Amino acid sequence: MPRNLDARAADFEAAFTALLADKRETSDDVNAVVTGILDDVRLRGDAALLDYTRRFDRLSLDATGLAIGAEEVTAAVAACDEETLTALRLAASRIEDFHRRQKPEGLSYTDAAGVRLGYRWTALAAVGLYVPGGTASYPSSVLMNALPAKVAGVERLVMVVPTPDGKLNPLVLAAARIAGVDEIYRIGGAQAVAALAYGTATIRPVDKIVGPGNAFVAAAKRQVFGTVGIDMIAGPSEILVVADGDNDPSWIAADLLSQAEHDTAAQSILITDDAAFGQKVAAAVEGHLATLPRAAIARESWESHGAIILVDSLDAAPALVDRVAPEHLELAVANPDALAERVRNAGAIFLGRYTPEAIGDYVGGPNHVLPTARSARFSSGLGVLDFMKRTTLLGCDAAALHRIGPAAVTLAKSEGLGAHGLSVALRVNMPRAE
Amino acid sequence: MPRNLDARAADFEAAFTALLADKRETSDDVNAVVTGILDDVRLRGDAALLDYTRRFDRLSLDATGLAIGAEEVTAAVAACDEETLTALRLAASRIEDFHRRQKPEGLSYTDAAGVRLGYRWTALAAVGLYVPGGTASYPSSVLMNALPAKVAGVERLVMVVPTPDGKLNPLVLAAARIAGVDEIYRIGGAQAVAALAYGTATIRPVDKIVGPGNAFVAAAKRQVFGTVGIDMIAGPSEILVVADGDNDPSWIAADLLSQAEHDTAAQSILITDDAAFGQKVAAAVEGHLATLPRAAIARESWESHGAIILVDSLDAAPALVDRVAPEHLELAVANPDALAERVRNAGAIFLGRYTPEAIGDYVGGPNHVLPTARSARFSSGLGVLDFMKRTTLLGCDAAALHRIGPAAVTLAKSEGLGAHGLSVALRVNMPRAE
Repeated sequence: MPRNLDARAADFEAAFTALLADKRETSDDVNAVVTGILDDVRLRGDAALLDYTRRFDRLSLDATGLAIGAEEVTAAVAACDEETLTALRLAASRIEDFHRRQKPEGLSYTDAAGVRLGYRWTALAAVGLYVPGGTASYPSSVLMNALPAKVAGVERLVMVVPTPDGKLNPLVLAAARIAGVDEIYRIGGAQAVAALAYGTATIRPVDKIVGPGNAFVAAAKRQVFGTVGIDMIAGPSEILVVADGDNDPSWIAADLLSQAEHDTAAQSILITDDAAFGQKVAAAVEGHLATLPRAAIARESWESHGAIILVDSLDAAPALVDRVAPEHLELAVANPDALAERVRNAGAIFLGRYTPEAIGDYVGGPNHVLPTARSARFSSGLGVLDFMKRTTLLGCDAAALHRIGPAAVTLAKSEGLGAHGLSVALRVNMPRAE
Repeated sequence: MPRNLDARAADFEAAFTALLADKRETSDDVNAVVTGILDDVRLRGDAALLDYTRRFDRLSLDATGLAIGAEEVTAAVAACDEETLTALRLAASRIEDFHRRQKPEGLSYTDAAGVRLGYRWTALAAVGLYVPGGTASYPSSVLMNALPAKVAGVERLVMVVPTPDGKLNPLVLAAARIAGVDEIYRIGGAQAVAALAYGTATIRPVDKIVGPGNAFVAAAKRQVFGTVGIDMIAGPSEILVVADGDNDPSWIAADLLSQAEHDTAAQSILITDDAAFGQKVAAAVEGHLATLPRAAIARESWESHGAIILVDSLDAAPALVDRVAPEHLELAVANPDALAERVRNAGAIFLGRYTPEAIGDYVGGPNHVLPTARSARFSSGLGVLDFMKRTTLLGCDAAALHRIGPAAVTLAKSEGLGAHGLSVALRVNMPRAE
């Protein structure tokens, strides 16, 4: 049974706080193992990469076999079901269109003091995209990670994907082709992260590494951070559905299960103002679980971490939502916009009864890589800005420097930084400041 | 002596690569100590905070003495030199003006399929600003960290600053007042980071912590990351000056020293196409060092990490600059814009002979918190976006969902995610997909 919370109950605050504090992730300490692998790949390059691939993926390659070439991708695409390819292309085109609108503008102006000011955005030169192997190898995630990078203008987008026993989902290669990935290597784990961060004879290093992975990949990303940029480390998925009694309980139950089926550590929460509706949803969850292919995972998630929260009025929902700061927020109410306006913290909001969260996972357009574990309080989903950086520009001529320079000399003096003051004072013929 | 590199020499590539690999930071392993402090503050709250403040800052307080109140700030401002306050106010007004122009636009549109799409930016609710005590307590850094947060719309900006032996730079309080900081506490170190991240009876928790600090503060920020957001961990400062022979060697020498004086681990690099000019700069550095207050620090930085790189033509500079990816790039040439256009990786660019980097530290307007240690390849200086987050919005009505839903069902099926497919299929009256 999921937890049942009642906002009118005396113990609600304690129960809600406990729900927020719910530890869902088990963190294996793999840091020492990962450090060893990173050091080894850094030192021995391709040779280490091939050794680990033999050991972990049971795949014997030489360095020339690391890359997945264009012919292999073409063959994989040919092996894919045409209906699925068409759906992938629709998804790609919608994702690309939404992300194109995120491209930031530069700035350039001269202010009243005659100082030229501005900034410009440039794309990262090279980005690595980690794609998990096996059952977590999702073509939709390839699109969601690769397309914002290409829209940003990243010139060299390098995908790595492990192929345990040589097996690879052809749809992953199809998604890579559709998204415009430039290089693909059949490697995974911490060794793949090391190759992307430090480079080997075969694989040139990148500037940033994105994409989901297991505990080894996450630890490796944390350890190479600084040498390269990394994206957020994604935790288990979450959904919070705010629904009134006018919804079909079966629909809302399916929405809750669509997060629960990802991972036993996923979390699905329903907030409703209708106790009977809440019970109907709980019953519909049971009904769906009887038929779903991933029912065991979904059931464990729902029973361990799920919750139904009853409130007097949905007016109380935004304050609770902000404390949960959910990755996905579904507003299944008659006027979702009014409720959305009052929410501060959510990764993505799904508006109205006909917008199940799964639409956003595939074909909506916005990114499905979103902040988890309450981090929507301070971070955003993946987007074009994650593949660009801003360089500020400042230009004075002699007259402008005479106008604003003396204040800089005064402040440098107050901070005891003599050379700072000197560098300005010399140019404006001021006496030495310190 | 700084290193002298000649781009025409046979060993240049090796020497330049060695310069890039130069390890300047010593990393004390303070993690275990910091973990203990964080756990203790988390458990014991104010009591632990007061214990550590007694121990590390030699300051006995009770909980009511943690806050620095408005009267105390007013008294500090009254104690400040009026010329310095005027300079701080000029700096604040220029920084605020530049950052106001960074406020991002939201997005809202309905596409051809009838899907409502968009995103909106919201400010973080509460931010913590760490300000170091002692000699590294810079009022300019208070402005640079606080103003973007206030411009973003952060409602609760909480400053922490240690006051060893009760001492505090009044200009830091003046800068806090000018920037609109909402709460100030006289605490520092890992214990202050813990209080901001977890909250105590006196200090409510924040959503993100920014600002520079020593090794303990940096380690504490890394450890609380996830519970709260953090800014980048700043490394030692860097400047790369590209200068032709038409510059005054004395000016350029002062610019190089303005980074060197920050820290023995700072790095100053000159790229020039004029060997004689390079020698004159080196001589001018010696001349300045004879008189500067922080000459010992600056000399050690310059001799250990400084470099003069001679190139055939300044045309060769952008490629080298991009590999260094300097925090500060000064282009002291006749046509700096043309050169700037060709640079991809730099935190901030200073254009022309009359724009010493120190102008940007104080009164230019752009932020002086910038990416170090080659991270300008993948990250940006501090700005308004660091205090906001983006929530995406997606809304389908029944007709729109009928248009794009079937593709989502197909993709969910291909990924084996039954509840995902079900949540869409139920709404568009499709047969169950799995």
